Amino acid sequence: MITVLSGGVGGAKLVHGLATVLPDPGSLTVVANTADDCEIWGLHVSPDVDTVLYTLAGLASPERGWGIEGDTWAALEMLDRYGAPTWFQIGDRDLATHLARTMWLREGQRLTEVTARLARRLGVRSTVLPMSDDPVRTVVHTPAGRLPFQEYFVRRRAADPVLGVEFDGLATARPSPEVLAALRDARVVIVAPSNPVVSIGPILALPGVREALRGTSAVRIAVTPLVQGRAIKGPAAEMLQGLGMAATPATIADLYHDFLDLFVLDVRDQSAAASIEAAHASPRHLRVVCVDTVMPDIPSRTRLARDLLERILALGVDLPIPRSVLPG
Amino acid sequence: MITVLSGGVGGAKLVHGLATVLPDPGSLTVVANTADDCEIWGLHVSPDVDTVLYTLAGLASPERGWGIEGDTWAALEMLDRYGAPTWFQIGDRDLATHLARTMWLREGQRLTEVTARLARRLGVRSTVLPMSDDPVRTVVHTPAGRLPFQEYFVRRRAADPVLGVEFDGLATARPSPEVLAALRDARVVIVAPSNPVVSIGPILALPGVREALRGTSAVRIAVTPLVQGRAIKGPAAEMLQGLGMAATPATIADLYHDFLDLFVLDVRDQSAAASIEAAHASPRHLRVVCVDTVMPDIPSRTRLARDLLERILALGVDLPIPRSVLPG
Repeated sequence: MITVLSGGVGGAKLVHGLATVLPDPGSLTVVANTADDCEIWGLHVSPDVDTVLYTLAGLASPERGWGIEGDTWAALEMLDRYGAPTWFQIGDRDLATHLARTMWLREGQRLTEVTARLARRLGVRSTVLPMSDDPVRTVVHTPAGRLPFQEYFVRRRAADPVLGVEFDGLATARPSPEVLAALRDARVVIVAPSNPVVSIGPILALPGVREALRGTSAVRIAVTPLVQGRAIKGPAAEMLQGLGMAATPATIADLYHDFLDLFVLDVRDQSAAASIEAAHASPRHLRVVCVDTVMPDIPSRTRLARDLLERILALGVDLPIPRSVLPG
Repeated sequence: MITVLSGGVGGAKLVHGLATVLPDPGSLTVVANTADDCEIWGLHVSPDVDTVLYTLAGLASPERGWGIEGDTWAALEMLDRYGAPTWFQIGDRDLATHLARTMWLREGQRLTEVTARLARRLGVRSTVLPMSDDPVRTVVHTPAGRLPFQEYFVRRRAADPVLGVEFDGLATARPSPEVLAALRDARVVIVAPSNPVVSIGPILALPGVREALRGTSAVRIAVTPLVQGRAIKGPAAEMLQGLGMAATPATIADLYHDFLDLFVLDVRDQSAAASIEAAHASPRHLRVVCVDTVMPDIPSRTRLARDLLERILALGVDLPIPRSVLPG
């Protein structure tokens, strides 16, 4: 019933909040970015998918934002001794995820099937879908050259100015049938507060996804990833600026306006609400609402989820959500 | 100068003893069986090579005989949660070895090169050579069918009667050039007290290895893996009997007699010495000596190594070994 487009940490927090407050977490589907995927030690790593899975399974490390809480580093330390690259830190339990994924992919299963299998084994009751079964890889153009996303993001700590971003593989990649169905059949589609360029951007860039979002009967909502000109986590603001855009919620609304019904601004930015609404008054009227979108802790995830559900119900969307779930 | 043909545990103990007492451990080369190799979780595992490496590096678990002492099991437990097979137990540090090996093999390096790289990083100063860069895989015929070696040995705990043994891949496998050179250039070749069927057998079955052993100018020695009709560890006795051979040192001498100069019998079996010598009096005279071959602890490894070196020097072999190394 609810489909969320998500990157890693910020999206996973909102997804966690929704899965917690929804009477049936099985009514939630997450479409996770896979353009951050990379090969480490010969293994297929899907950072955003894993962050969503681990968060929903209650395994995530809330401080780090990646990996498994309390994970150990024995394999990493030994690989360091062998001279293997260790800038992408993989804990021992996390490593098992990549081993299982890689093994099952080599057996011929689709990434969608592999992800479902991992989710089931982790006790995750919501549906987690990689955006595509085909490889799409973000490449960041910087003064130091073209960097694969994890080189830019993890190895070089997102310190390089961003001159451009491209998604290798788009020419042949397709969204999975499950993703298209999740957009078509949802009553609500939520674009999570994730990086609009490198998390949501690749999902929207897949052939047919924007069309599916424009054509769905679902109510389409986006939660701003920018609060007071900055991302809570990650380089969204710097990336937007590097690409010549202002790091403001108005930019986010512009990026999604062709399919969006409701834009969720942070209360701290509510002075921008009127101008965003005015900018998108026609041909389609974009409503703007303000809530507290910042999620520093677990209770704030459910608070935001409840606030969103209340706004969704206020739009007249038919969701079987009891009154008790809502705020107040 | 000294080349040892070795399987896992028993061979690794003798190799460790030799590396400890030799003035230069770099003068020792180990040719390790790779017919036990298997693929676990998509990774190339070389159990005998690793047991030799870990033992020489001081990392081996002396109780278990495989893996790394004090290793942890976080990845294994997580893979169990994912429903992946966990009958082949791989610890977290051990896992790093298989990850590095598999990664480097996929990069196109030979198993010989990969093993040298692992050894160097582990601080192993002796040369450890896999018997071949080509895949050879032991298959055990049992009443339950044809079992890959690790299925028979680890998963089913060597409990099935052995009706036959074959080595898949022999038709196209070759010993590596490094192995042939190590046999040709050595002054001493020692067949370790390893399983004659599934550890030493595959090495000897490689095309050209028996010829190299017959043709080398090295003194060729075998240490019995059987003491009082039993192997110290592993199913050698049961395998020999399953193949219709007596589980006696005389059988071992028969298996190696075409190239052997000296057979090292355990003192507990010294009553068999005369009949073994008599059986191989011509065309080539096989000498038999008796020493204590049992290695229950670390000191007994160096004791056996010293005893062997003394016997080797007594044969007039020119080895630069100071008197102080020898027993007494």
